[in-house]
Amino acid sequence: MTQAPAPGAPTRVLERSDLIVLVGGAVAVVLAGLSHYLTWGDIAPFLLSGVAVTALASLVGRSVEQLGDRFGPGATGVLQSALGNLPELFISLFALKAGLVGVVQAALIGSMLANLLLVLGIAFVVGGLKHGSQAIDSQRARSIAVLLIVAVVAMVFPSLATWIHAPAASHEKALSDIAAVVLIVLFALSLPASLRRGSNLNGAMSHQAEPPRWPVTLAVGVLAVAGLAAAFVSDWFVDALQPAMDSWGISDAFAGLVIVAIAGNAIENVVGVQLAARNQSDYAFSLIINSPLQIALVLAPALVILSQVFGFAALTLVFSPMLVVAVFLAVLIGVVITVDGESNWLEGASLIGVYGVIAASFWWG
Amino acid sequence: MTQAPAPGAPTRVLERSDLIVLVGGAVAVVLAGLSHYLTWGDIAPFLLSGVAVTALASLVGRSVEQLGDRFGPGATGVLQSALGNLPELFISLFALKAGLVGVVQAALIGSMLANLLLVLGIAFVVGGLKHGSQAIDSQRARSIAVLLIVAVVAMVFPSLATWIHAPAASHEKALSDIAAVVLIVLFALSLPASLRRGSNLNGAMSHQAEPPRWPVTLAVGVLAVAGLAAAFVSDWFVDALQPAMDSWGISDAFAGLVIVAIAGNAIENVVGVQLAARNQSDYAFSLIINSPLQIALVLAPALVILSQVFGFAALTLVFSPMLVVAVFLAVLIGVVITVDGESNWLEGASLIGVYGVIAASFWWG
Amino acid sequence: MTQAPAPGAPTRVLERSDLIVLVGGAVAVVLAGLSHYLTWGDIAPFLLSGVAVTALASLVGRSVEQLGDRFGPGATGVLQSALGNLPELFISLFALKAGLVGVVQAALIGSMLANLLLVLGIAFVVGGLKHGSQAIDSQRARSIAVLLIVAVVAMVFPSLATWIHAPAASHEKALSDIAAVVLIVLFALSLPASLRRGSNLNGAMSHQAEPPRWPVTLAVGVLAVAGLAAAFVSDWFVDALQPAMDSWGISDAFAGLVIVAIAGNAIENVVGVQLAARNQSDYAFSLIINSPLQIALVLAPALVILSQVFGFAALTLVFSPMLVVAVFLAVLIGVVITVDGESNWLEGASLIGVYGVIAASFWWG
Repeated sequence: MTQAPAPGAPTRVLERSDLIVLVGGAVAVVLAGLSHYLTWGDIAPFLLSGVAVTALASLVGRSVEQLGDRFGPGATGVLQSALGNLPELFISLFALKAGLVGVVQAALIGSMLANLLLVLGIAFVVGGLKHGSQAIDSQRARSIAVLLIVAVVAMVFPSLATWIHAPAASHEKALSDIAAVVLIVLFALSLPASLRRGSNLNGAMSHQAEPPRWPVTLAVGVLAVAGLAAAFVSDWFVDALQPAMDSWGISDAFAGLVIVAIAGNAIENVVGVQLAARNQSDYAFSLIINSPLQIALVLAPALVILSQVFGFAALTLVFSPMLVVAVFLAVLIGVVITVDGESNWLEGASLIGVYGVIAASFWWG
Repeated sequence: MTQAPAPGAPTRVLERSDLIVLVGGAVAVVLAGLSHYLTWGDIAPFLLSGVAVTALASLVGRSVEQLGDRFGPGATGVLQSALGNLPELFISLFALKAGLVGVVQAALIGSMLANLLLVLGIAFVVGGLKHGSQAIDSQRARSIAVLLIVAVVAMVFPSLATWIHAPAASHEKALSDIAAVVLIVLFALSLPASLRRGSNLNGAMSHQAEPPRWPVTLAVGVLAVAGLAAAFVSDWFVDALQPAMDSWGISDAFAGLVIVAIAGNAIENVVGVQLAARNQSDYAFSLIINSPLQIALVLAPALVILSQVFGFAALTLVFSPMLVVAVFLAVLIGVVITVDGESNWLEGASLIGVYGVIAASFWWG
Repeated sequence: MTQAPAPGAPTRVLERSDLIVLVGGAVAVVLAGLSHYLTWGDIAPFLLSGVAVTALASLVGRSVEQLGDRFGPGATGVLQSALGNLPELFISLFALKAGLVGVVQAALIGSMLANLLLVLGIAFVVGGLKHGSQAIDSQRARSIAVLLIVAVVAMVFPSLATWIHAPAASHEKALSDIAAVVLIVLFALSLPASLRRGSNLNGAMSHQAEPPRWPVTLAVGVLAVAGLAAAFVSDWFVDALQPAMDSWGISDAFAGLVIVAIAGNAIENVVGVQLAARNQSDYAFSLIINSPLQIALVLAPALVILSQVFGFAALTLVFSPMLVVAVFLAVLIGVVITVDGESNWLEGASLIGVYGVIAASFWWG
């Protein structure tokens, strides 16, 4: 997101973009806090804490980038994967603490749908209008697509079993835990390869950027403070969600599926679209479809286990039928597009259209 | 469908094939009209108006071909797409006027199934037996396959939402309208590219043929008369459908899915198979799978909107579960075959076999 | 499975591996028979007859290999296909005779799941760890994948029709018979090509091996005796199944889906994994996904017809919803992996993981 300095130009510790993100983040957190504690109506706390979460996500990403390059691109990638999901993890945990299981389930699936349909669609339209048809033919993209469909089948199978296999219906928690453990083991198995080869997408992205400018202490400090702030702000965001939705007359399902999902991934999504605009379509594509893979492999199963460990409202992998059908169809479309080997703006527009039809179906909660 | 004249041979305004189609069409329309107004039993009006519809579809196609080349291949393609669906559009509108919503829904899906399974299967068998394995590897074919699966998901999502998401069940008309608008917008977005590049399949086909022989006035006249006649004959066909089905003991679902669907596409289907027989497999394949794409992008959504505008029985995109499952599986098979990159007669035979199993399931209406 | 002799080394009629299989098979059959007739508890008859079935499957395979090369590789392949399913056919028939329709249905689907997920997963892990990423890019593999998805759609359509199309619900036997006939016709159509080209996978495999060592009479004799013994042992195995499952507290569904399915395919599975270990990934892949294709094209429809001919409990192709969903998802994953063009151990691990989640869902019968 930053303009790389011209070769030979002197690099400063804090560039202008760093200052904007740092100061903007601090201001957003302070405003969100004020709106929360002084209860500025129904809408302001929601919007301000939403902006603050996004700003903190950006700060976490930036400090990991500055920190991580010292450990090589592989470790950075893994760190970024783990920490990049931090704001979503916090929001989901506070939502589970508040008993909003339905919202969390909708947000997890909604986040996958938004990436596979809306963000991918926008990236295709932007890239296609600027550069014509763009090729997507790396083995990496195809490998992500294979893991994605396999992981999503494992993630939704407890739902299927619960609905259509009567004897399994009374064991949804056990089935859910088994699937969660399988997914986390798969994630753990994928780590050594990521560490060794630096093949992780986020790692590869930071690798493209300039060498680290921040001293280690600054990077660690920003990371710690931003992480801590993210925990607070997530709590305020979840608190503000229900009143805002009520005042707008928006159903829980739509709030989780569309609003929380898009807010929680704003930064990643912008980066993906920017890459497509720069004609790095293959790269943009891999980044965008890697995000739903991370949700299926880590975020969802981690929440299943953490919600039980912390004694919150238990999240299971037994989603509502519409969520399962929607995510299955979105993954299938994602796989077909990966295999197609080329993207154009009309395909992008059709993805956005399908996203619109699916989102509309959830409007009536 | 016509034998191209030997190079240098003098071309006449009306070739023998033109005369056959013109005279044949006129005779078929007259006979259909007689059987309708004189009520020649239950079967004759149905068969005669079915033949007349097919003959008129062929006449419309031929006059557009003769007319359109003056505007360049792009415009011809768009014209042909629009007018090629005219007979199906008329039949469906008269059926909706008669309240036969179920027959129209079955015919729309049945037309897609017939193309994706039966016609494709016959084309593979004919092409494979004559020429061995045939390659299908154009980017165009893969692009159609991507748009097809995305469009079909948008088309059937209102059905899925209505069945499995209780709050959506009472909004089937609204959901249906949203999906119809999305699909028509996608179709409109695809038009400029078709106009500019002449990449439309029908346009490309007419482009292969000889230069136009008919004077503009003849082409416009034939088009106007054939279009008008198609409106009348469609009305007679719909009138005759129910008595014929009753006398044969055929259920509504089977009549729509198999009989109306095959009758409505007879011409296109023959062309597709002929192309495969001439070893133009890639071309045949694109033509055959473009037809279901047109149904999903234009015909079905246009009928949804027109049925409301005209105040006929309202068509929605909420199909019966079997229709949705059948069309989804057929599209999935179509996509897998596109990606496979090669066709042979055994694959063709297996497509015909699946079509048989699906059609048999609808026998008991 | 046998070490090929060094070039020029004298070949003997019976190699050491032959003797092991012959003597081992005889001992296993005798022990299984003793345990059956002397009723050695609940567990021993089951385990011993399971081992004996596996040994006889290996003997049948070996004698066909020795016999068949005299007719050319095509005929051998066809013979092996037909006779390779003999033990599974016998077990299923005796199970149907005993009225265990649910177990047979679960075993048919379970056998497909085990091949497409578990065995393929193990082959990818073994091959990937030994040789890194392995290519799968033959046209043959893609052709099998296309036939597989088409055949499975035909196989499960009667189930879908019965559940979601009310008028079809009372015709499940007729629909099932239609689908069975379609599948067997497709199998018959595929035979001439296999006979002519020797493209059959099993044929190709035996072709790689050394020239036949056994005299024809020995090969025929072993085949006849092993086939006869397989019929007896299958009967004992089915008899022993229920008591063993009861004493272990295992549900019928899980017994069929996992235990019978894995026992019935043990030999083929080991061969597939061995090929992957020897870096013949493409070959291993084709062999492994050919097995579920054979089940859909021959074994399942043959059992539908034979169960009616013999007057046993009628097997229909109307499976329980979970079985249909599981096999559809497994086939879809198999197709995506075929198209992916490459395998690695992480994909293999994810396949094993999905198999675990699915098997777990059937644990509660």
